Amino acid sequence: MPSLYNRVAGQSVERLAALSDGIFAVAMTLLVLDLRVPTREAVHSEHDLWHLLVAMAPRLVIFLMSVMTLGIFWVGQQTQLNHFARADRNLAWIHIAFLCAVCLVPFSTSLLAEFIQYRTALGVYWFNIVLLGLTLFWSWSYARRAHLLADGVPDEVHPAVVRRIVIAQALYACGAALCFFSTYYSIAAIVLVQINYAIAPRFCWGIFSRARIKANPSS
Amino acid sequence: MPSLYNRVAGQSVERLAALSDGIFAVAMTLLVLDLRVPTREAVHSEHDLWHLLVAMAPRLVIFLMSVMTLGIFWVGQQTQLNHFARADRNLAWIHIAFLCAVCLVPFSTSLLAEFIQYRTALGVYWFNIVLLGLTLFWSWSYARRAHLLADGVPDEVHPAVVRRIVIAQALYACGAALCFFSTYYSIAAIVLVQINYAIAPRFCWGIFSRARIKANPSS
Amino acid sequence: MPSLYNRVAGQSVERLAALSDGIFAVAMTLLVLDLRVPTREAVHSEHDLWHLLVAMAPRLVIFLMSVMTLGIFWVGQQTQLNHFARADRNLAWIHIAFLCAVCLVPFSTSLLAEFIQYRTALGVYWFNIVLLGLTLFWSWSYARRAHLLADGVPDEVHPAVVRRIVIAQALYACGAALCFFSTYYSIAAIVLVQINYAIAPRFCWGIFSRARIKANPSS
Amino acid sequence: MPSLYNRVAGQSVERLAALSDGIFAVAMTLLVLDLRVPTREAVHSEHDLWHLLVAMAPRLVIFLMSVMTLGIFWVGQQTQLNHFARADRNLAWIHIAFLCAVCLVPFSTSLLAEFIQYRTALGVYWFNIVLLGLTLFWSWSYARRAHLLADGVPDEVHPAVVRRIVIAQALYACGAALCFFSTYYSIAAIVLVQINYAIAPRFCWGIFSRARIKANPSS
Repeated sequence: MPSLYNRVAGQSVERLAALSDGIFAVAMTLLVLDLRVPTREAVHSEHDLWHLLVAMAPRLVIFLMSVMTLGIFWVGQQTQLNHFARADRNLAWIHIAFLCAVCLVPFSTSLLAEFIQYRTALGVYWFNIVLLGLTLFWSWSYARRAHLLADGVPDEVHPAVVRRIVIAQALYACGAALCFFSTYYSIAAIVLVQINYAIAPRFCWGIFSRARIKANPSS
Repeated sequence: MPSLYNRVAGQSVERLAALSDGIFAVAMTLLVLDLRVPTREAVHSEHDLWHLLVAMAPRLVIFLMSVMTLGIFWVGQQTQLNHFARADRNLAWIHIAFLCAVCLVPFSTSLLAEFIQYRTALGVYWFNIVLLGLTLFWSWSYARRAHLLADGVPDEVHPAVVRRIVIAQALYACGAALCFFSTYYSIAAIVLVQINYAIAPRFCWGIFSRARIKANPSS
Repeated sequence: MPSLYNRVAGQSVERLAALSDGIFAVAMTLLVLDLRVPTREAVHSEHDLWHLLVAMAPRLVIFLMSVMTLGIFWVGQQTQLNHFARADRNLAWIHIAFLCAVCLVPFSTSLLAEFIQYRTALGVYWFNIVLLGLTLFWSWSYARRAHLLADGVPDEVHPAVVRRIVIAQALYACGAALCFFSTYYSIAAIVLVQINYAIAPRFCWGIFSRARIKANPSS
Repeated sequence: MPSLYNRVAGQSVERLAALSDGIFAVAMTLLVLDLRVPTREAVHSEHDLWHLLVAMAPRLVIFLMSVMTLGIFWVGQQTQLNHFARADRNLAWIHIAFLCAVCLVPFSTSLLAEFIQYRTALGVYWFNIVLLGLTLFWSWSYARRAHLLADGVPDEVHPAVVRRIVIAQALYACGAALCFFSTYYSIAAIVLVQINYAIAPRFCWGIFSRARIKANPSS
């Protein structure tokens, strides 16, 4: 029954993408709930309000860090899903595990925003990033073993995906290890790693961009 | 007017899927709100924070259980929708009833997380699972009676879907009945049933997977 | 430039549908936040918890009423969008006004759940339904005037849509007027009107269902 | 590898649109949480409830203003995405920055609703609008430089988009500057600018509507 099979499975990748976009959208928007509006009792002048907003700067940094975390893994998952010709139930469940880790991001962000100087909070945040990386790696390796990749995917994509996840997680782990000096160093290191992946796409992402550069010589 | 009819109804299945993905996404993300960040007043050291996080373990188990509940019914509904050629208003309303039960999952999860030792809370959670199963069963049997299934759906799919829902609900009912000994036994049993459906897809789901196994001998 | 125009506008109906599905999904899921889990302090036995849950029955009725309200207007909007060949900016803004009324449903539901015996709360809820009906009516009449309907839409659809909205709003207004006797009568009347539209689709919706009945003689 | 490239990138615009619709939907629905239901303790009669609701009028104005803000930028982003033939990672990240500014709208709306007479709150709200405008401008100019626009996009679209964003931001800046007299003047000015863009589409949006007017002489 190849026609039944193809239709069912093809539909699945679409709905997996739709569920993922929904969960990423809600998780990103929930992050803003950590930016709590000051209470009216604490504010008696423009000066008070200004100072309370400035005091929110660390929370804003953590908000932006989590938006970048979610952005990086959204781009990563999207790139994987775009290479899949079809899905099966196992792949759906691996992605549900991934999305479960996405759902935890607002919790670990809240925890870090509230306890920014505590290594435990930073450890939970880092563990969340590890979970995201592991499930995404699991998704890719399962899809490859189960022959779910699209036919046109060239051989060099596989080592590029593996290298990318391994290097990124190694950098995150080094950043998290800095918390034994100070959690602020860790946060700075994680933000720098993220900015590197968000802004400088030429680093170890070459395989994917090469095709684009060929088609768009100006980019 | 078959062209008007087909276009309208075909569109409906898509939008039903989109609404469902949205509701599942929001419901899954709301579950994390039960994992409440400890208050700053209660924490004076890394040790305090660590202990408060360890004390959240039962809440985390219930969070994971509910993610699995939603995952199972998301996969189940997706499989049904993929077999429908078109929808009508009755089917839309059956699925709105199903989605209403999905919306209740964050409530019954919260209730169980707060009152984990109370049989009443466990009964509400179980009743929610029953509602999800009943509406999904209703959707399938209505779609079959109203000739909404796609043409290619083989005859053996129907008994497989029925068997699957009936056996799963029977297992959930047995698990819930264990609450007369202890609610912890019930939760463990429900989690085991869920892990069985999430990880071991070979059990009573044979009809659907057979086609896949044929196409992907390695999976 | 008909090709540019068609592509842009065609895309618009899809994204309007996607935004709508998202807003309906979030609004439906937020409704459950009114079902507040009892506090642990108030519960000392299974008996307490059971009584507190039974005392939530009116809130549950209002939750179900609002799910039906959103369901009815979701089906209504979906039916309209399915008949549109394309959208323009005015139509997009009319639907943003409609979606703004959808966003208000969790507020007016909360208000009614908290102040179930107050005519003011019931008036706000009814006004919300009126806003939903008005914007949906406006959408249809604008789309017809601006020639945005698909070519295949038969002439008898227009009076059917108008009749449907006018009769439904007249019934809601009668239901709301019953609040001068008791708000409970009003709620009962509104729920009955909604059940009529959700379950008995043969009433004044004939034009749409006739095509379906012809194609599916058994339904 | 043009086929791989096209499929991947084409998918990206779709998923960018899906993520955006999700975030706009959640952000719009979260706005309603600022309309807080009065507490039961404060209400002893219909009269009390009515007065408390009337006292919420400024919050309702700010709610409507933010729905319009989000509506304007949703229409703007949709129009841009409809003109893109494909996306790349840089464009995805520019849109994640845009969506991050969208996520901040519920925060700055809350802040303004709570501190409506404070220039600092109005400044934060205006800064949020500036961020939305800047990222949208950045998206368009990057897409143009990187040759991501669809082939059929006529040359006059570019200056129209630029003019539109520059004029709108200039009007918002003038409105915000009125806060040195009174924040109420600023809010009124911003609402008027928004109503102009929402209702009177003929102003500096001519290029886009011309094609529509040609096709639909009656609109």
